[in-house]
Amino acid sequence: MTLFAGTFARGAAAAAVSDDAWLRALLEVEAALARAAARAGLVPMTAADAVTAACADPTRLDLATVVAKAADAGNPVPPLVRVLQDAVGERDAVAVHVGATSQDVLDTALVLLARAAIGAIDADLAAAAETAAGLARAHRDDVLMGRTLMQQALPTTFGLKAAGWLAGLDGARLRLAEVVAALPVQYGGAVGTLAASSGAGAALRDALADELGLVTTAVPWHTVRLPVADLAGALGAAAGAVATVAVDVVLLAQSEVAEVAEVGEGRGGSSAMPHKRNPVAAISARACARRAPGLVGTLFAAMEQEHERAAGAWHSEWPTLTELLSTVGSAAAWLAESLRGLRPDVARMAATAAAAAEGPLAGALAEALVPALGKGAAHDAAAAVVREARETGRPLTELVAARTDVDPSAVLAAATPDLGEAGAQVDAALAEHARLTEGTA
Amino acid sequence: MTLFAGTFARGAAAAAVSDDAWLRALLEVEAALARAAARAGLVPMTAADAVTAACADPTRLDLATVVAKAADAGNPVPPLVRVLQDAVGERDAVAVHVGATSQDVLDTALVLLARAAIGAIDADLAAAAETAAGLARAHRDDVLMGRTLMQQALPTTFGLKAAGWLAGLDGARLRLAEVVAALPVQYGGAVGTLAASSGAGAALRDALADELGLVTTAVPWHTVRLPVADLAGALGAAAGAVATVAVDVVLLAQSEVAEVAEVGEGRGGSSAMPHKRNPVAAISARACARRAPGLVGTLFAAMEQEHERAAGAWHSEWPTLTELLSTVGSAAAWLAESLRGLRPDVARMAATAAAAAEGPLAGALAEALVPALGKGAAHDAAAAVVREARETGRPLTELVAARTDVDPSAVLAAATPDLGEAGAQVDAALAEHARLTEGTA
Amino acid sequence: MTLFAGTFARGAAAAAVSDDAWLRALLEVEAALARAAARAGLVPMTAADAVTAACADPTRLDLATVVAKAADAGNPVPPLVRVLQDAVGERDAVAVHVGATSQDVLDTALVLLARAAIGAIDADLAAAAETAAGLARAHRDDVLMGRTLMQQALPTTFGLKAAGWLAGLDGARLRLAEVVAALPVQYGGAVGTLAASSGAGAALRDALADELGLVTTAVPWHTVRLPVADLAGALGAAAGAVATVAVDVVLLAQSEVAEVAEVGEGRGGSSAMPHKRNPVAAISARACARRAPGLVGTLFAAMEQEHERAAGAWHSEWPTLTELLSTVGSAAAWLAESLRGLRPDVARMAATAAAAAEGPLAGALAEALVPALGKGAAHDAAAAVVREARETGRPLTELVAARTDVDPSAVLAAATPDLGEAGAQVDAALAEHARLTEGTA
Amino acid sequence: MTLFAGTFARGAAAAAVSDDAWLRALLEVEAALARAAARAGLVPMTAADAVTAACADPTRLDLATVVAKAADAGNPVPPLVRVLQDAVGERDAVAVHVGATSQDVLDTALVLLARAAIGAIDADLAAAAETAAGLARAHRDDVLMGRTLMQQALPTTFGLKAAGWLAGLDGARLRLAEVVAALPVQYGGAVGTLAASSGAGAALRDALADELGLVTTAVPWHTVRLPVADLAGALGAAAGAVATVAVDVVLLAQSEVAEVAEVGEGRGGSSAMPHKRNPVAAISARACARRAPGLVGTLFAAMEQEHERAAGAWHSEWPTLTELLSTVGSAAAWLAESLRGLRPDVARMAATAAAAAEGPLAGALAEALVPALGKGAAHDAAAAVVREARETGRPLTELVAARTDVDPSAVLAAATPDLGEAGAQVDAALAEHARLTEGTA
Repeated sequence: MTLFAGTFARGAAAAAVSDDAWLRALLEVEAALARAAARAGLVPMTAADAVTAACADPTRLDLATVVAKAADAGNPVPPLVRVLQDAVGERDAVAVHVGATSQDVLDTALVLLARAAIGAIDADLAAAAETAAGLARAHRDDVLMGRTLMQQALPTTFGLKAAGWLAGLDGARLRLAEVVAALPVQYGGAVGTLAASSGAGAALRDALADELGLVTTAVPWHTVRLPVADLAGALGAAAGAVATVAVDVVLLAQSEVAEVAEVGEGRGGSSAMPHKRNPVAAISARACARRAPGLVGTLFAAMEQEHERAAGAWHSEWPTLTELLSTVGSAAAWLAESLRGLRPDVARMAATAAAAAEGPLAGALAEALVPALGKGAAHDAAAAVVREARETGRPLTELVAARTDVDPSAVLAAATPDLGEAGAQVDAALAEHARLTEGTA
Repeated sequence: MTLFAGTFARGAAAAAVSDDAWLRALLEVEAALARAAARAGLVPMTAADAVTAACADPTRLDLATVVAKAADAGNPVPPLVRVLQDAVGERDAVAVHVGATSQDVLDTALVLLARAAIGAIDADLAAAAETAAGLARAHRDDVLMGRTLMQQALPTTFGLKAAGWLAGLDGARLRLAEVVAALPVQYGGAVGTLAASSGAGAALRDALADELGLVTTAVPWHTVRLPVADLAGALGAAAGAVATVAVDVVLLAQSEVAEVAEVGEGRGGSSAMPHKRNPVAAISARACARRAPGLVGTLFAAMEQEHERAAGAWHSEWPTLTELLSTVGSAAAWLAESLRGLRPDVARMAATAAAAAEGPLAGALAEALVPALGKGAAHDAAAAVVREARETGRPLTELVAARTDVDPSAVLAAATPDLGEAGAQVDAALAEHARLTEGTA
Repeated sequence: MTLFAGTFARGAAAAAVSDDAWLRALLEVEAALARAAARAGLVPMTAADAVTAACADPTRLDLATVVAKAADAGNPVPPLVRVLQDAVGERDAVAVHVGATSQDVLDTALVLLARAAIGAIDADLAAAAETAAGLARAHRDDVLMGRTLMQQALPTTFGLKAAGWLAGLDGARLRLAEVVAALPVQYGGAVGTLAASSGAGAALRDALADELGLVTTAVPWHTVRLPVADLAGALGAAAGAVATVAVDVVLLAQSEVAEVAEVGEGRGGSSAMPHKRNPVAAISARACARRAPGLVGTLFAAMEQEHERAAGAWHSEWPTLTELLSTVGSAAAWLAESLRGLRPDVARMAATAAAAAEGPLAGALAEALVPALGKGAAHDAAAAVVREARETGRPLTELVAARTDVDPSAVLAAATPDLGEAGAQVDAALAEHARLTEGTA
Repeated sequence: MTLFAGTFARGAAAAAVSDDAWLRALLEVEAALARAAARAGLVPMTAADAVTAACADPTRLDLATVVAKAADAGNPVPPLVRVLQDAVGERDAVAVHVGATSQDVLDTALVLLARAAIGAIDADLAAAAETAAGLARAHRDDVLMGRTLMQQALPTTFGLKAAGWLAGLDGARLRLAEVVAALPVQYGGAVGTLAASSGAGAALRDALADELGLVTTAVPWHTVRLPVADLAGALGAAAGAVATVAVDVVLLAQSEVAEVAEVGEGRGGSSAMPHKRNPVAAISARACARRAPGLVGTLFAAMEQEHERAAGAWHSEWPTLTELLSTVGSAAAWLAESLRGLRPDVARMAATAAAAAEGPLAGALAEALVPALGKGAAHDAAAAVVREARETGRPLTELVAARTDVDPSAVLAAATPDLGEAGAQVDAALAEHARLTEGTA
């Protein structure tokens, strides 16, 4: 049972970093390593094929022993290698773990795992971005009160807000894609010299990278942890991009604002307060995203690694990166769900903006009446109109438009929301999104 | 299978924060809440007993439904309450969740969970401290080269070093104990007014605290997260106290230093390098401890909580505190294991210190010969003795002691390690440890 | 000029950790050390007095040299000692830096600095707490809509909210006071053995602690950094307690909520938008508080310190703790300013709560009409009353109270905000505050 | 006086983010904004020239007022704009701050500041990288004992270690360069609509980007903080790359290892212990680098920003990014200094490796003697040779080479360090470095 994981874990990223996924990734690396060794001429291809076959079917392996002995070895690779050797038999065991050290296999598996998890994260980010693009398009010209420092400021559009969300999500996807494309293979042997690779180490490294679709390197990165830092940075950025959308949803959904609602089946009800409708998905996205910065900091702190293999810092990366991939994945999945169920209330948005415009409008009316009435009387007349609007429920704009003692269009213009280039910017953001989407399709 | 959790998870703390433990803690709170409501006169004690009975046997409850509905509710309490009500039947359901909101139950369960996990952590810290105390006592006067900024400096004793470890571990235990003793109950109802407690809310809160052995409060702490901050701080301090011992072990175990070795069954061997003996337990302690500061930072960052219940920050605490308790527990367990298997090499320590003293000793000899030989010849004579010691393998001190042209005892005194008040400080640290241990026994 | 420091730095804590304050603290420690050495019988009191005199007047010292040579030495103490020795002359130089190592002086100075800065922080926290207490008292029974997960939930009081703020601020003060009371002296000599203290090291340490009003220790804490962790934890908790009040102010001040306003002279205006009134002090408090968790994490990470003096981790504490004290001090000062200028709008609070109660009230009316009219007609009649209230602007409660076909008091009771034990809890929090305040006065 | 800043601040980055630099950057943005407005046809070029002139000479401006009013405004831009308008006079004031909001100017200035500081950081990283390249080249084939988990493992070369350092430093530079090349201009007006830009906002934004050599954007990034996240990530990676080199230097410089020494004028001496030579520059690099991860975490946490301008998170970026640039700059400068003064002791490295090879060599000798002597006698004979080597001080290899009862070359081969493809990997790393250097030259 996963009571608490179940509460917040969402999307496919968590599964992509499960213990089972870890194990399959380790085996995928060992299999590719065997084939790469064969391609480099170090072992017979038949032996490599035997290793590949053994790795393809974990149920044939004695994994209980691996788990039991992992802690004593400090990592699961030594017992896994032993189990693999036993599985393929003495003759083909020559193709197991050729020239490698535990870290070669673990780091490469970590990279594969991260790539798979980011694939899942990206799918949810893409879904969220697509919905944001749809909102930007649909509400390109729908007025929304812009708010700065949590105060109503000047009007903007809901389309432009959604375009900002889109830009953030697209930017996060771009960064993740760049990091994934540059993920390197790890291969160097015990201390990085390739001494156990019979002179074919660099060739084997290239072949291994080719087998796994990774980038090769000039030297090992056993203690040069830039690839981990890249993952940390891009995942942290993704969490931040998600969080800033989620907080907007939460704020716009406040009872007093009510400009959006999050609709989900059976979602968000409160047992004690049935009238409440909590934006649970956005709240969960925010909760998951907030776990990222601390984990990111841990990974950057772990970059200080000693000599040819670190005594602790390296080991601290595994659970931390696993948690980070998992929580960012959940954040992305929750956000996709939140946006999918988002119901903008454009009438309410317009009403809020109109109410905010009443002050300027009354001021403009008073100004226009001054020539005829003088300052004091003009002010009183404008105040009377505002009062009338409130008491009758008629819009102030309507009352102003009906007047004959001023030029209504001039007065109304002074209080008409100026949306500037909001629409054109939405178009530009959508065009950029289209370019990005084509690029990745 | 828990391949990676298995690699580093150690001790009982991880189990104390499992999903299963979470569930049992939630039920323990609901049961105590029912009894407290009965004590406060709000429900019949028979109903409370029925709830207690239902909570005592989770297998009778439909927990699959709880798990399935937890995410939609934003937390597992609403479906759990429903399932409990169903389990006890309509008549006794009056005693379920009396006057409470989800956060009351979740926060109180979190506190219980933390208390249990810290119990486990403390047991391992106590074991490590006891071993450190034994080392301090046994090696009270065994010379060890002190090292500052990673350079040999002046002699100290291994006993004083172990006394420093002891002071850190005891200090960490003290802090955890203080935090645990102050852990508060959470009870306030939907928005903290106790409005659903029929006027007996404060009394019920006191009774609930009494039932669970927790501290009561004047107001709820729904968004005043000092108890979580206290846990974060004390756990972070414990991680740091563990880490500083672990790094000493790792450094002293270096091949070039070799003043301690970590002995464990089947532990620390390298498949590629059978001659290596890695201090796996100390390395693992360090790895686990290094995950703490980022998690601590996340919990402090989560203290900013909105209105009467936060929209995300609160939720981010659960997995973060769970991870923190688990990793600090593992760190403590690994350190206890490391110290238990620690083999100090006092001969090697003494030899290192003696070698470091050769320079000062030769200088003192030359100085003593100056009156008789003049500065130049005195220096040459001293250099000749150093050479002789190296070539014959006899200790320099022995050669100096045999000389008749100087007062050997005066010369040797000049180069004798001055251990100052190392021994007395060891005694003081042990006395303090004894006081603490009596206090907690 | 301090353009950016000037923007956000507030209160006296920043000055308490200035470079100048650092220098004075170092000199205060050296002076106390001289007197302690005299009390321990190691140097003449006349020499100690000369050192005290020299330390009292930094203008007599060649501090430019200290600054110039600090980086080469790795810390400022070695050149400072040299300058002090020169200042007092050869005879009295015996009383300079007796038996000490740089870290003894630096750590003790850090502790003094922290104590002084926390004094400043506490003054601002106390001012904020006093204002919060005043708000709690004044608004004990003023209804406010409680909000959970950023949605209106059920009514509470502004007094209870302020009492929650008070509990957080008082709790933060309590934690800081406990940490300050336990701050220890640092004294151990080069490697902690007290070897250069002529056998009177422990006595000298006690005397030094006594001179400075600090706690003495059994062993040095050169690499056992619990006191730094304690400071980090308590300061992080203070930042969190400030932040959660600040975010409440920011949220309540939103244009759409407008239940509080922050009034300050010339504060918060926007050049582009003169109608805006930003709660600048609360925003600044939040900004300053948000810098704390990362700094706290750095200090916990720095607890892993090697051997007898760390090679880097120790050094990383100084600027980090300095920044932390400074930013938490600014956060506290801004919050005190924000609360001092806070203008609650109780009428608006009441109106919001009343509006939120309309739904329940209409429901209660319909329910009461069912016996007479049947379910459908009762619902229509209730809806008509709601419509009438809206159109006429008369409160729904007034229309209900005027009805003769139902028992108005029963209907109204069903929709009257139930404030539970809000008032009693406010009283309890104020009583606790009074106890705390007496305790510290 | 900057006592503590002086202790650790190093290089030009700290100056690049001083308050004075901040002010100049703000003025540079305002000047560029005026010219961009002229290019977009919104104001006369003569007015823009007047603004440019005023911005070029800060001494003409009343900056005391700016500082005094910055805190009340929440940021320094509003008073700066006022002062600028006064400076250029009413006619040319039309060209001041055209269509902009404070955040437009502040964010763009932040970006300029970061670019300048990274320029300084990069210069120090380049210097360190160049030195590392020189070390890799010079010591391509010099044997060094590889160490994993802090234990001697198998031989590698100092050249390969230095090549790893080089790869890390080059990688960090590459990441910083990519981030700098993508730094965007900020321009959107009060709520991002460009409403105050007279319809020429997008054109003005493009022109402003062009004026400042920045990238333009489709929408503003007022609350989409990816550029800040990019800076945080790349700076964190740089800190980590520096730290891992620094910890290697510190470990290799340990008294017991002594394979490198850090030589600097008057550097690293200990007043109490004149025989010590601390690697102060490497220690300082490590101390500065360790401050980065917490600051990086703060910036990622600040990505959650509300609505059209955040209430606190935005403000928390300024001091945090400033500190981060400054401490990473200092770390890079200290590392450059450390490597510049690094003295590798290749003889000592070789001796350590040879000593580590004695075990394998004796084993190989015994093995070779078995056919002639039988297992027991062979073992005794080999042990006798080892004893002879120790007593006479002659290398074991020499004694083995002189034997006639075995094939010395075969025995020696078995114990010859196998450096694998260490040399070829050094060549590959140097080739990659050359490509990178050409690319940036």
